Amino acid sequence: MNALTGVGVSPGVGSGPGYVLSREVPVPDADARHDGDAEAERARAARALERVAADLEERGARAGGQAQEILKAQALMARDPGLAVGVAGLIDAGMNASRAVYEGFGGYREMIVGAGGYLGERAADLDDVRDRVVALLEGLPAPGLPAPGVRPYVLLARDLAPADTAALSREVVAAFVTEQGGPTSHTAILARAMGVPAVVACPGAASVAAGTEVLVDGFSGLVRLDPSPEEVETVARAAAARQAVLAAATGPGATADGHPVPLLANVGGPRDVEGALRHGAEGVGLYRTEFLFLNRTAPPSEEEQVAAYLGVLDAFPGGRVVVRTLDAGADKPLAFLPPPGKEPNPALGQRGLRLFQRYPEIMETQLRALARAAARSSAKLQVMAPMVATRQEAAWYVAACKEAGIASAGVMIEIPSAALRSGDLAAEADFFSIGTNDLAQYTLAADREVGGLGMLHDPWQPALLDLVLAAVNGAAERGRSCGVCGEAAGDPALACVLVGMGVTSLSMAPTALPAVRAALSLHTRERCVLAAQAALAASSPSDARAAARAHLPELAGLAL
Amino acid sequence: MNALTGVGVSPGVGSGPGYVLSREVPVPDADARHDGDAEAERARAARALERVAADLEERGARAGGQAQEILKAQALMARDPGLAVGVAGLIDAGMNASRAVYEGFGGYREMIVGAGGYLGERAADLDDVRDRVVALLEGLPAPGLPAPGVRPYVLLARDLAPADTAALSREVVAAFVTEQGGPTSHTAILARAMGVPAVVACPGAASVAAGTEVLVDGFSGLVRLDPSPEEVETVARAAAARQAVLAAATGPGATADGHPVPLLANVGGPRDVEGALRHGAEGVGLYRTEFLFLNRTAPPSEEEQVAAYLGVLDAFPGGRVVVRTLDAGADKPLAFLPPPGKEPNPALGQRGLRLFQRYPEIMETQLRALARAAARSSAKLQVMAPMVATRQEAAWYVAACKEAGIASAGVMIEIPSAALRSGDLAAEADFFSIGTNDLAQYTLAADREVGGLGMLHDPWQPALLDLVLAAVNGAAERGRSCGVCGEAAGDPALACVLVGMGVTSLSMAPTALPAVRAALSLHTRERCVLAAQAALAASSPSDARAAARAHLPELAGLAL
Repeated sequence: MNALTGVGVSPGVGSGPGYVLSREVPVPDADARHDGDAEAERARAARALERVAADLEERGARAGGQAQEILKAQALMARDPGLAVGVAGLIDAGMNASRAVYEGFGGYREMIVGAGGYLGERAADLDDVRDRVVALLEGLPAPGLPAPGVRPYVLLARDLAPADTAALSREVVAAFVTEQGGPTSHTAILARAMGVPAVVACPGAASVAAGTEVLVDGFSGLVRLDPSPEEVETVARAAAARQAVLAAATGPGATADGHPVPLLANVGGPRDVEGALRHGAEGVGLYRTEFLFLNRTAPPSEEEQVAAYLGVLDAFPGGRVVVRTLDAGADKPLAFLPPPGKEPNPALGQRGLRLFQRYPEIMETQLRALARAAARSSAKLQVMAPMVATRQEAAWYVAACKEAGIASAGVMIEIPSAALRSGDLAAEADFFSIGTNDLAQYTLAADREVGGLGMLHDPWQPALLDLVLAAVNGAAERGRSCGVCGEAAGDPALACVLVGMGVTSLSMAPTALPAVRAALSLHTRERCVLAAQAALAASSPSDARAAARAHLPELAGLAL
Repeated sequence: MNALTGVGVSPGVGSGPGYVLSREVPVPDADARHDGDAEAERARAARALERVAADLEERGARAGGQAQEILKAQALMARDPGLAVGVAGLIDAGMNASRAVYEGFGGYREMIVGAGGYLGERAADLDDVRDRVVALLEGLPAPGLPAPGVRPYVLLARDLAPADTAALSREVVAAFVTEQGGPTSHTAILARAMGVPAVVACPGAASVAAGTEVLVDGFSGLVRLDPSPEEVETVARAAAARQAVLAAATGPGATADGHPVPLLANVGGPRDVEGALRHGAEGVGLYRTEFLFLNRTAPPSEEEQVAAYLGVLDAFPGGRVVVRTLDAGADKPLAFLPPPGKEPNPALGQRGLRLFQRYPEIMETQLRALARAAARSSAKLQVMAPMVATRQEAAWYVAACKEAGIASAGVMIEIPSAALRSGDLAAEADFFSIGTNDLAQYTLAADREVGGLGMLHDPWQPALLDLVLAAVNGAAERGRSCGVCGEAAGDPALACVLVGMGVTSLSMAPTALPAVRAALSLHTRERCVLAAQAALAASSPSDARAAARAHLPELAGLAL
């Protein structure tokens, strides 16, 4: 096998030596005995347990926040007195330290795995501690990310957690390839934000031998192993040609016949502003403010928030900046905003605006900070709420915005009920922004993070397009604007379809802007309308995509 | 305070001494010392740990299935050698057995609670073991359900798990009252199935003193504490009068002007058939077959399935029986059908038809068994799939049904995309049945089991009504029937609205049949249509309910 196939989720071509993110350490031999000095071996085991505990604590202190809590709990596992007694007893019976540690963790593991339900998580944490101790005793590298090399490497894994990838940069990683995950998984979103090619839902990725040369095409989803120099060159040349065409498309977003479509950037804070400007963003269509709140034990002060918001607003003098207020809960829990109880399905729980209804003081501080920042900047501030399901929620939020002195208050359309009742919501809100990722998740009842449901996450699902159209129509009845800020906006063909349905602006990862700008500039608005009608008339995602592309002939020439 | 208010979710009036489901045992005194005989005290602690472990194992063996796994893991906790060493050390230092056990569990607890995320679950299991051991040492009753008394009791709790209530019957429990939960929570569904009154989302329920006389009105949601004899009589008399009117409505379901609306029962197996017949069900609209598959280590054989299906089919000679094939996953995991990996949101994961796509042999056996049962019965069998999101899934399932020799193959409409694309799905499926509970959960992105989201679960949410209408219209275009089998069908006013929208049959908990039959018999189809139009034009659940009821004047007289 010299090629693997997955779903390309972050365009571009990357190559380098492949390394599989490893969490595995070989199982120590069951018959391994020590040399007879039990006391020395016991001390060796105790030192290794303590060193791993201290290392976990130290890494936790560096990371802070929730990661620190998890790492502290792991350190406690390594320091458990019952475990120490068990390991010492096994060593006294002649077993060597590695195997004694391995067996000593067995009792815990059995308890945890037998517990049903939540086992996977806890057992994985425990195994990680065990593997670190065994690796230390055996003189093996600790499990985890490979060290940065001379050339950036291709990181392969069964799946990547945000914690695995948070510390990485383009200098270290040439591409990501995972066996699981979908187009809207965190891996995909992070890779696009970094501008690193990525392929997900790629079977076999985690079985590639370490050091194998890997060539990743993040557009087609093709992953070549040990490619010939000619293959590398062909793929790179095609990518460069495409890049040249994209670079030629500049200026504000518009269709070929001059219908303006503001092209905006999704950002997480001031540090993303430079990339947005470099790719020609006309403003910000989604400023995810939760990054300001994550990994801390108390909410940021009003002053700190004003400074952060100004860091984004001041980058777009006279331009538009759409800020989404705190979207905590679900996969982004905050230590200081606990949900009211256990949530079997956090994505369907107390998140987004629902948490604000429980903690209105957090919302009021954020809205005040936003109003103050807007007063000191020439950018046009718009503020919107995540996870709005009903007209009553929209009215409550908009009233709070107006009370704080915010001129333009809108809502995200990311719950099916909000799209279905967009006419009601438009009576309350000044504008809409459609979050296609969560909207698809709820419309198809398919978790974004579950790889096996890949096809259901396809942003071309006709039912998702139906709801986008419903939202656009509801907004239009009242003369409200309706943008899209989900990942769908960054797909060049789908961007044309959205414009054809009447979407008034598109916001996306900055790296996606050039391709979307080029795609729009090559097609008239009428072509976009025909493409949208064709997509809506289809009854499967692949039919919708093919039917729309038949009306968008210039995309094929760009290999988009 | 002599009254509490919640949401009535299972009608009827019940009263009796109140008991709060307790999981709490007093904390042993921090200064408690033993009498000096450390060896005897150590032996006492060890015996208590072992007795609780053995009791947990024994209860597990009786329960079987997943409950057994959980109880086995708890037994392992009680038998943990590290814990025994720690407890013995504390006793040697003079502490008494109860406090030593309490403190000994502390180390574990710290580890688990510190771990973040999944802590609540594991810590609760551990605390339960600790409390059982402490209760045994202190001579207190073990935490859990009270023993059955001379009179049925009112069971109060913060929340009830299916495991808490599975063993209960009407002879033991007069009513349920919980602080959490919504109208479609398991507590509500189970209470309706048992015919026991229930009130959920009732703050203060878990603080009622044991033995307090409690009067529960499961229609209005009012819970009176220490009611006067007059209050008991007034409430009981009103309930009896309502009951008399309902008993008078008999025969097949129809509107006042004779438009037939078959009234069917939701059942879980042959043992529910008697109740369905007693309440005049004309057939079965939802046979939940998963109860046949739960709590076992291998799927039931084809023979066993044929027998179970015949047990329901034979109760309705010439009648209709709609069977939903296995809906496993999410809150109903099966030991022999594990999902492919951890699922952060099981309700959005590999459940229902999605598991059949992974394990087609389980589906094929079930479909064969159904076809064989139908061939031996005069009932009209219809078979339908849960969790269908797309036309492609519907086509795959219907083809498998036809292959097995099943004449009528349909799909549940419980995912927004299925309702939105009902026209596409009607091209594949012979009939639809709308599951309003899950459809509401996904449409409003609000977990059915999370009490704090109560208002979002209201089956009168206009967006939910929009999707019901979309499904009915999609079915009608192709001449397909479209029933409703969610809890909404059992609300007398909403049942009229559904009929007004064009729903062709209603299936519900058998105890809800008389009230719905009476409500339909008192209103013409035109009244139902007007009520539906009024509800759809509203923009909140309360407005929709009030607007519809204004067109259904006879309901007030029935106090329905």
